[in-house]
Amino acid sequence: MPTHPFDTAIALHAEADNRFSGHTSAAYANMIGPFGGVTAATLLNAICVHPARLGDPVALTVNYAGPVADGPFTLHAVPVRTNRSTQHWRVDLVQDEAIACTATAVFALRRETWSSPEIARPEVPDAPNVPVNAMPARVVWFKQYEMRFVQGGMPDFRNPPPVDDTTHHDTTSTLWVRDEPPRPLDFPALASICDVFIPRIFLRRQRPVPAGTVSITSYFHADAAQLAAQGSQPVLATACAQNFRNGFFDQSGTVWGSDGKLLASTHQVVYYKE
Amino acid sequence: MPTHPFDTAIALHAEADNRFSGHTSAAYANMIGPFGGVTAATLLNAICVHPARLGDPVALTVNYAGPVADGPFTLHAVPVRTNRSTQHWRVDLVQDEAIACTATAVFALRRETWSSPEIARPEVPDAPNVPVNAMPARVVWFKQYEMRFVQGGMPDFRNPPPVDDTTHHDTTSTLWVRDEPPRPLDFPALASICDVFIPRIFLRRQRPVPAGTVSITSYFHADAAQLAAQGSQPVLATACAQNFRNGFFDQSGTVWGSDGKLLASTHQVVYYKE
Repeated sequence: MPTHPFDTAIALHAEADNRFSGHTSAAYANMIGPFGGVTAATLLNAICVHPARLGDPVALTVNYAGPVADGPFTLHAVPVRTNRSTQHWRVDLVQDEAIACTATAVFALRRETWSSPEIARPEVPDAPNVPVNAMPARVVWFKQYEMRFVQGGMPDFRNPPPVDDTTHHDTTSTLWVRDEPPRPLDFPALASICDVFIPRIFLRRQRPVPAGTVSITSYFHADAAQLAAQGSQPVLATACAQNFRNGFFDQSGTVWGSDGKLLASTHQVVYYKE
Repeated sequence: MPTHPFDTAIALHAEADNRFSGHTSAAYANMIGPFGGVTAATLLNAICVHPARLGDPVALTVNYAGPVADGPFTLHAVPVRTNRSTQHWRVDLVQDEAIACTATAVFALRRETWSSPEIARPEVPDAPNVPVNAMPARVVWFKQYEMRFVQGGMPDFRNPPPVDDTTHHDTTSTLWVRDEPPRPLDFPALASICDVFIPRIFLRRQRPVPAGTVSITSYFHADAAQLAAQGSQPVLATACAQNFRNGFFDQSGTVWGSDGKLLASTHQVVYYKE
């Protein structure tokens, strides 16, 4: 079986002193540099493959401090504190001696205890009943995901509807999404899907606007058993903005398993230039 | 005018090499150690007072890696990357050579541009029309805030209602809150208020459950002018949980100005022991 392109993209080579070398993947190229989701997945992967790792991810914050150039990079992944059942990490992505990304993560050994959802999965048709969307070919990483939009797909920029700035616009996107070709879900893949949403400002303005994630935080509700049960089936992802103000907007989303259980909640703040 | 207890709590003394010394405040004591909100505010303050600071905060993530003991601590605040209009920071809180908290922050020079809210402030009575709640005296830091709960106040643990685990329970808390005594709102005070919510699991289970924030991320939508306009009036804060699962739950909230504009959105993941 050939290696999945996602595994190639997040592959790391362990060096000495908590350092790992990697290389950006042409398959996950964005308009400029790599897709931020796969960058977040790669930083998380440095912890997942680290020999000192304790448990599974609970929280991951990635800050995109500067552009990531196509080419090699070094990750520096340090377990800054290990407790009995939790472990705190710091990860940096370095290129040419400059820090391009910083990250922190919390890992934990989970144990089964009282659990209960508070919010429910959006009611949508099952994935097979939602058509697959053809995404713009100019964004390479779109080809690595099968997307079936229930709501809030990529606007048709050649034929935009009139936008009235004075009224409320809902930027919610809801889609079934999976790796293309299919790949069993794991924590790096889930971290990447947490960033799969097109910029909310595209939907709000109905036209392309320069925008880029500045900081993303994802909380992992799933454990390894839940991911194994999910396998390579599509997950349901939904996100909306809360506020656009003077060059930055925020976005909050959730990612749901095919069994209707929450896999991850995810939040980000995004720079935009209007 | 005497120094406000919040200013005493977040006060730092600059040392060499990006280091600052501080001391926990008895006025903001929690059941064990300091209130996490004031810890987050103190870490943010290290950047605010740092001579290399560029602009105002956009994002702050604080990870509570280990207990903070009552007493002195050292903060290490490093500007890891400075761009033209954004700056990325790393801050650690160290006690006895162990890292107790890690943080990352994004600061930015904002410029006025197209802005628009997507969500609206909850419709609630004005602050003067909501009674001030007496909070349990055993938690010292409660005394430093005036809280007027519209919804989801501290449960009466001596006389809890029956809780049915099989049905949905809304853990939303909505309250008017301000520093006590009143103090003009600034970024550290806003960062602290982002953590002012009692643990959602108290509301869900209607009984005290050991719980503690593991990681909090706040996004600042307000700029300095908006904070100045807010002054020392109460802000409206609202939060709910999304999912409780095997020892961790998440919480998402928003903090609104008295003019109805969003000041901050805030998210956290919380450990609980059932």
